[in-house]
Amino acid sequence: MRPIIPDYLTEALGDVEPDSSGEPAAYIPELAAADPERLAAAFATVDGRVYGAGDVDVPFTIQSISKPFAYALALADRGFDPVLAKVGVEPSGEAFNEISLEIGTGRPLNPMINAGAITVHSLVGAENSSPAERVERVIHGLSAFAGRRLAVDEEVYASEMEHAHRNLAIAHMLRSHDVLIEDARAVVDGYTLQCSVLVTTRDLAMMAATLANRGVNPLSGEQVVPEPVVRQVLSVMFSCGMYDAAGDWATQVGIPAKSGVAGGLIGALPGRIGIATFSPRLDRHGNSVRGVSLFERFSSDMGLHAMEVPSAGRASVRSNHVVGSGPDALRVLELQGGIDFAGAERVVREILETAPPETRVAIDLTRVHVIDDVARRMVLEVVRRLTLDGHEVHLVDPETILPDPDPGDGGRVTVVRDVDQATLPSA
Amino acid sequence: MRPIIPDYLTEALGDVEPDSSGEPAAYIPELAAADPERLAAAFATVDGRVYGAGDVDVPFTIQSISKPFAYALALADRGFDPVLAKVGVEPSGEAFNEISLEIGTGRPLNPMINAGAITVHSLVGAENSSPAERVERVIHGLSAFAGRRLAVDEEVYASEMEHAHRNLAIAHMLRSHDVLIEDARAVVDGYTLQCSVLVTTRDLAMMAATLANRGVNPLSGEQVVPEPVVRQVLSVMFSCGMYDAAGDWATQVGIPAKSGVAGGLIGALPGRIGIATFSPRLDRHGNSVRGVSLFERFSSDMGLHAMEVPSAGRASVRSNHVVGSGPDALRVLELQGGIDFAGAERVVREILETAPPETRVAIDLTRVHVIDDVARRMVLEVVRRLTLDGHEVHLVDPETILPDPDPGDGGRVTVVRDVDQATLPSA
Amino acid sequence: MRPIIPDYLTEALGDVEPDSSGEPAAYIPELAAADPERLAAAFATVDGRVYGAGDVDVPFTIQSISKPFAYALALADRGFDPVLAKVGVEPSGEAFNEISLEIGTGRPLNPMINAGAITVHSLVGAENSSPAERVERVIHGLSAFAGRRLAVDEEVYASEMEHAHRNLAIAHMLRSHDVLIEDARAVVDGYTLQCSVLVTTRDLAMMAATLANRGVNPLSGEQVVPEPVVRQVLSVMFSCGMYDAAGDWATQVGIPAKSGVAGGLIGALPGRIGIATFSPRLDRHGNSVRGVSLFERFSSDMGLHAMEVPSAGRASVRSNHVVGSGPDALRVLELQGGIDFAGAERVVREILETAPPETRVAIDLTRVHVIDDVARRMVLEVVRRLTLDGHEVHLVDPETILPDPDPGDGGRVTVVRDVDQATLPSA
Amino acid sequence: MRPIIPDYLTEALGDVEPDSSGEPAAYIPELAAADPERLAAAFATVDGRVYGAGDVDVPFTIQSISKPFAYALALADRGFDPVLAKVGVEPSGEAFNEISLEIGTGRPLNPMINAGAITVHSLVGAENSSPAERVERVIHGLSAFAGRRLAVDEEVYASEMEHAHRNLAIAHMLRSHDVLIEDARAVVDGYTLQCSVLVTTRDLAMMAATLANRGVNPLSGEQVVPEPVVRQVLSVMFSCGMYDAAGDWATQVGIPAKSGVAGGLIGALPGRIGIATFSPRLDRHGNSVRGVSLFERFSSDMGLHAMEVPSAGRASVRSNHVVGSGPDALRVLELQGGIDFAGAERVVREILETAPPETRVAIDLTRVHVIDDVARRMVLEVVRRLTLDGHEVHLVDPETILPDPDPGDGGRVTVVRDVDQATLPSA
Repeated sequence: MRPIIPDYLTEALGDVEPDSSGEPAAYIPELAAADPERLAAAFATVDGRVYGAGDVDVPFTIQSISKPFAYALALADRGFDPVLAKVGVEPSGEAFNEISLEIGTGRPLNPMINAGAITVHSLVGAENSSPAERVERVIHGLSAFAGRRLAVDEEVYASEMEHAHRNLAIAHMLRSHDVLIEDARAVVDGYTLQCSVLVTTRDLAMMAATLANRGVNPLSGEQVVPEPVVRQVLSVMFSCGMYDAAGDWATQVGIPAKSGVAGGLIGALPGRIGIATFSPRLDRHGNSVRGVSLFERFSSDMGLHAMEVPSAGRASVRSNHVVGSGPDALRVLELQGGIDFAGAERVVREILETAPPETRVAIDLTRVHVIDDVARRMVLEVVRRLTLDGHEVHLVDPETILPDPDPGDGGRVTVVRDVDQATLPSA
Repeated sequence: MRPIIPDYLTEALGDVEPDSSGEPAAYIPELAAADPERLAAAFATVDGRVYGAGDVDVPFTIQSISKPFAYALALADRGFDPVLAKVGVEPSGEAFNEISLEIGTGRPLNPMINAGAITVHSLVGAENSSPAERVERVIHGLSAFAGRRLAVDEEVYASEMEHAHRNLAIAHMLRSHDVLIEDARAVVDGYTLQCSVLVTTRDLAMMAATLANRGVNPLSGEQVVPEPVVRQVLSVMFSCGMYDAAGDWATQVGIPAKSGVAGGLIGALPGRIGIATFSPRLDRHGNSVRGVSLFERFSSDMGLHAMEVPSAGRASVRSNHVVGSGPDALRVLELQGGIDFAGAERVVREILETAPPETRVAIDLTRVHVIDDVARRMVLEVVRRLTLDGHEVHLVDPETILPDPDPGDGGRVTVVRDVDQATLPSA
Repeated sequence: MRPIIPDYLTEALGDVEPDSSGEPAAYIPELAAADPERLAAAFATVDGRVYGAGDVDVPFTIQSISKPFAYALALADRGFDPVLAKVGVEPSGEAFNEISLEIGTGRPLNPMINAGAITVHSLVGAENSSPAERVERVIHGLSAFAGRRLAVDEEVYASEMEHAHRNLAIAHMLRSHDVLIEDARAVVDGYTLQCSVLVTTRDLAMMAATLANRGVNPLSGEQVVPEPVVRQVLSVMFSCGMYDAAGDWATQVGIPAKSGVAGGLIGALPGRIGIATFSPRLDRHGNSVRGVSLFERFSSDMGLHAMEVPSAGRASVRSNHVVGSGPDALRVLELQGGIDFAGAERVVREILETAPPETRVAIDLTRVHVIDDVARRMVLEVVRRLTLDGHEVHLVDPETILPDPDPGDGGRVTVVRDVDQATLPSA
Repeated sequence: MRPIIPDYLTEALGDVEPDSSGEPAAYIPELAAADPERLAAAFATVDGRVYGAGDVDVPFTIQSISKPFAYALALADRGFDPVLAKVGVEPSGEAFNEISLEIGTGRPLNPMINAGAITVHSLVGAENSSPAERVERVIHGLSAFAGRRLAVDEEVYASEMEHAHRNLAIAHMLRSHDVLIEDARAVVDGYTLQCSVLVTTRDLAMMAATLANRGVNPLSGEQVVPEPVVRQVLSVMFSCGMYDAAGDWATQVGIPAKSGVAGGLIGALPGRIGIATFSPRLDRHGNSVRGVSLFERFSSDMGLHAMEVPSAGRASVRSNHVVGSGPDALRVLELQGGIDFAGAERVVREILETAPPETRVAIDLTRVHVIDDVARRMVLEVVRRLTLDGHEVHLVDPETILPDPDPGDGGRVTVVRDVDQATLPSA
């Protein structure tokens, strides 16, 4: 059978290919010399499958796409408070190379602008790391996100250092505010190395998928950074990832994302997918022209917008009926799908409104495939209150979807494999 | 049985009640005189159930919470382009009463700051509406969101007009840029009326639920605004709803939200829930102190953060097995849960990787309760390609979860009620 | 004899006439319709002589040139403190229609930008003036500067009011900061009338000459505003009079000045001259193109730059010699020119360094035509100290250049008409 | 005789001594350790006399007071255009350490803020100077202004370099805009040396006097920089010398000035005087508290405000009378004082209005002590036109006040020593 998703990707690339607007970054010769026709797109699922089309294995420098990952590493290595004390999370509404320091404190507004990213670089690794150790920690960390050891493009690095005047200015300014406490030049040097890490579109998709997969690299299984760090990083990408086009992106694409000046662009949709594109020509915001088009299409075609109501995941109560009659009558509440807070609320309500006259109640989870923590606690609380109200409660859970079914505090429940078991009066 | 969710809400209110920090808005006597101890919280589900605790029926003025709803009305009434031409969607990183006009064009940065909201007010209703018609359209629209006819607090309105100097300044500035083309004073007058609409916490929860429910009021069933409008509004609320604390909110709470200076605060989580709180004391950003605490708790307790990986909704392929043997062997792919793009990808992959040697293939949707459009199309494409590769394909879909099962273009599928039906060789 | 100065002016006009760059103000039809070829220049001396060339009697609206005069009136009517409390004196480095309010207080940065000028208008006249009284006071005051009753161009006024959106915005903003405490619209109305006052180039030269002449209209002799007010006004004109070209003007022209959008331009050099030009085409700063050229030429040709060392006014000690010999020997110090602090210092030094052995000393003021207050006090102090050291001092002052020659506190001096009188031993 | 001016200075110091408000600069230990009670004031006349009181010979670092002098050197060494292309002349309305670069070009707004001063430092000396040559040129130039070889405080220099983060930031930013084309760190190093030059209050007064004396050091007689440079420097000092208090200073003191963070403060009044004060405690603008008080007093006591009408220098026509009668009648116009444009205008007018019927006219300069160039040309033009109208003109000029008395183009004049000579009919 011909592959469906690569077909889709190939078609999408074909559609944006004619657009030759924009210009590759030109501030260093190495970027200016990039082949502007390069074009690639890749999807990586949260279980590690990568689909690609175009130049997915052509390496290029990661540039600003390193920012969210280094931010994740800093949060993981130092904890939230020290990092938040030095770098804010507010959108700046400004171009990436604006200084955007908070008035008074000199704190960079967010980690996606250069001032923030330079500060973040200084916060990766242990507190007294040498510059070399810090760089090694960054490359090691980025590699863990990608699932393979990444290398540095030494020529790009050397060339960028020669043109790092603005970043040096920013670093010295941060140093003057004691936001940076290391040697300003050494931090810019390390940050420039970080930006010169070579990745392919395939790597980037996998890195994004690691974010989408709660910080666990789908292939290696390594928990690269803890889950709360991922939430923080995705939130900041959503608000601040696309420079001064952040609002347009948030409304039109609605995927937490980050672009790089070499033409890369990533998006990560929590629990669902990592996406990456590559095309060197940039728009006036510094974002890849064809990359932006591709993401707009992906978001629209696949319903990936974060503010879209997901179609999947509703209607948790499949039926509410009574089996048998008389004193042995059993009230059966059959649930289905994945149960979250909203689903559990339906269960609670159904029982509450029913106020079942039957003494015996069964909650049937046979058709449920997952239940989240808050929903689990709500279901158990329903069980507990039913018990207290004199009911005898069964949980039909053949696949142990609901772990540790202890309602606590006076609640009691009998777990059974099917409704038939529950219809038998308990001993 | 004692109610679970109201219990939870009551407990949450009790926990924040001791916090008497912050100050009620004081710029007009009517707001300064508000009882600062008022406290309420309400949840409204997308099917219209409202849970409340505290002063949920105490009316107060909607103030800035009217902004996202008026924005929705303007987008619905005029279309996206005319509204976007006049009001941007970029976060301003500034306090609500900063002017924040785009340099050059004078376009307000977003509809959540006053300059944007005043402009938006002028864009509600038909193009040549009189000021009175515009106000009536706004009140009618807000009422449709709430599901009941809302009234205006005439005293607050009169008092705010007396202190509307800054809004008048903004309106005249917008007029000077031709962003506003109506009489500046008349627009401020109408906008002030809009802000003086009286709502209860219960109303606000229902209004938020209407956003969470794709623009359909859960009780009245009225499609108040089209679905794309809702996505736009929620995106902007996510980035710009909490003034200059937008970034903190996005990372810590992660729910599209809007606060009002009278102490109201709403949040809407697409497809899941509308939330509202009420407590008049404000922090330095102008957001309700106890309201912010409550939302932080709700988000954390219930996993409502938009960048959280939803637990519910994964593992779409329940089993992949063969029934029977020989030429009649049937490859059965049993799916479960709600199927979106990521789920469909699993199906595609499973079949692709299996490259089933069996001629006969069944896709079993019995345990699937919903499938979104892109997933439906992907499943049908799988069917089509299997057909082209010589397979005979059955769709087990007893509840017609997958509507219009036409794979098109050479594809063929037989819909059956259960796998047993598929095990019989087709005629 | 053919006139010299008009010849010079005519020649200067001829030199700038070919320059047709720039555009007349176009924001109202009345200004856009102005004949762009109009060209005039006038000098007015501090004793009231006006020299003119070109269209010196063509009336046009005063516009922003009214700002320094209204500022002078406000300072005169209310005193320095109330005016300085509301309007600063700091250059804004911004275009005239920027808002430029001090952060926090909302105080306009200076009286030459619109925000400052609108506030200043509200401060002219008595504290509880009605808007009409205020306008009458302004027109009356401007007329006193000009030396004739000025009229208002009602059409320009009406048209400007229709386009006063930005000024209304500014006024409402000032109202919101309580910088303005009157009705915002009424103040803008009055301010617009103020800007619509009709003047000729001749009038403007006379108004400037009134500033150059310590606030006294050279012809009417009326002290229009007190002398300290004039110093304040000229200082602010020097730093802030030419919008965001203030620095270029200060370095290249060096004359306190103010331009108006109708094409007028004035300069006032303290104690020396008032200058006005008229040519409607404006540069991008809003200053008259040919007017700026004319002032550059006048400043250079005539050495009018405020930071130029005036050639006239040096060498105060003409000779220091002894007449006669023996006990009747007279030390004669012959002064010349105008004596200010620097001149008096020379006198002091000469005597100090001479430490005249002669008992009898004469200070000869015959060739002095003026002596300022500090110099007078220094000369008298020299006399006093000479007396205390045992000298007998004569002041040769045939024209009573040094009034009230009382050295006080033990000093004694004999005033004589010529040195011969001093050579005779006093009785 | 007891000295008058030192007495005055001593009294003035005594009056400000009790004011112990403000704080010495604390950003480096060397400045923080300065004795805050140090207090000095000095006047230097344009002919080289220095009067001082207090700690006039205590050395301290020049700091920002070096800025106008380095600006003068750069203008002298490179010419106006190259310097103006890199550093503007507009007031910034900001604190000294704000970056204040022109948007787009990155050009510093003026040479008195650090960004401008750092750029200016790079422009001193020949175009391809080494850093060491540049520093030597700066020290040599500052020394020429002071009239003695100045030394560097190596400890302050070393300490400032350790805290030069902000200046390094600024320099790298300027480098990124190609405003600076040298190595950023080397320029900051040289600039820091420049600021670490040691001066006394006496030195500063002499340096200011050199500016007041058209760029000629009053003692050495060296033309340190050309006169047009001085005018430029004084203009910029007037608008931008006192940081964000520039407007207050311009109105209240009105003397071109510059302050330094070590407590120094200079003022230069063209043609009249150089003033310096020293007191280390600074106000919130970074200006010496007691220094500002002293200058306010000096300005007021001595009428030094640039916008003050100088009392000395008016009334140029002493008399206009006829000697003799009949055909030998001589019209005598007796002038007095120093004659500038305004004075010459009076002469022109007097003759024009008189339209003297007498054939013979004498212009008597006996009581004139100086005449500037424009006035000289105007007087000669009067002579020329009188000749053309048939008059016979005498110039009574016993001291050759009017050099090269050739009216040209048909004019003729006879120079005589006294009026009596003129009364005799010419041969």
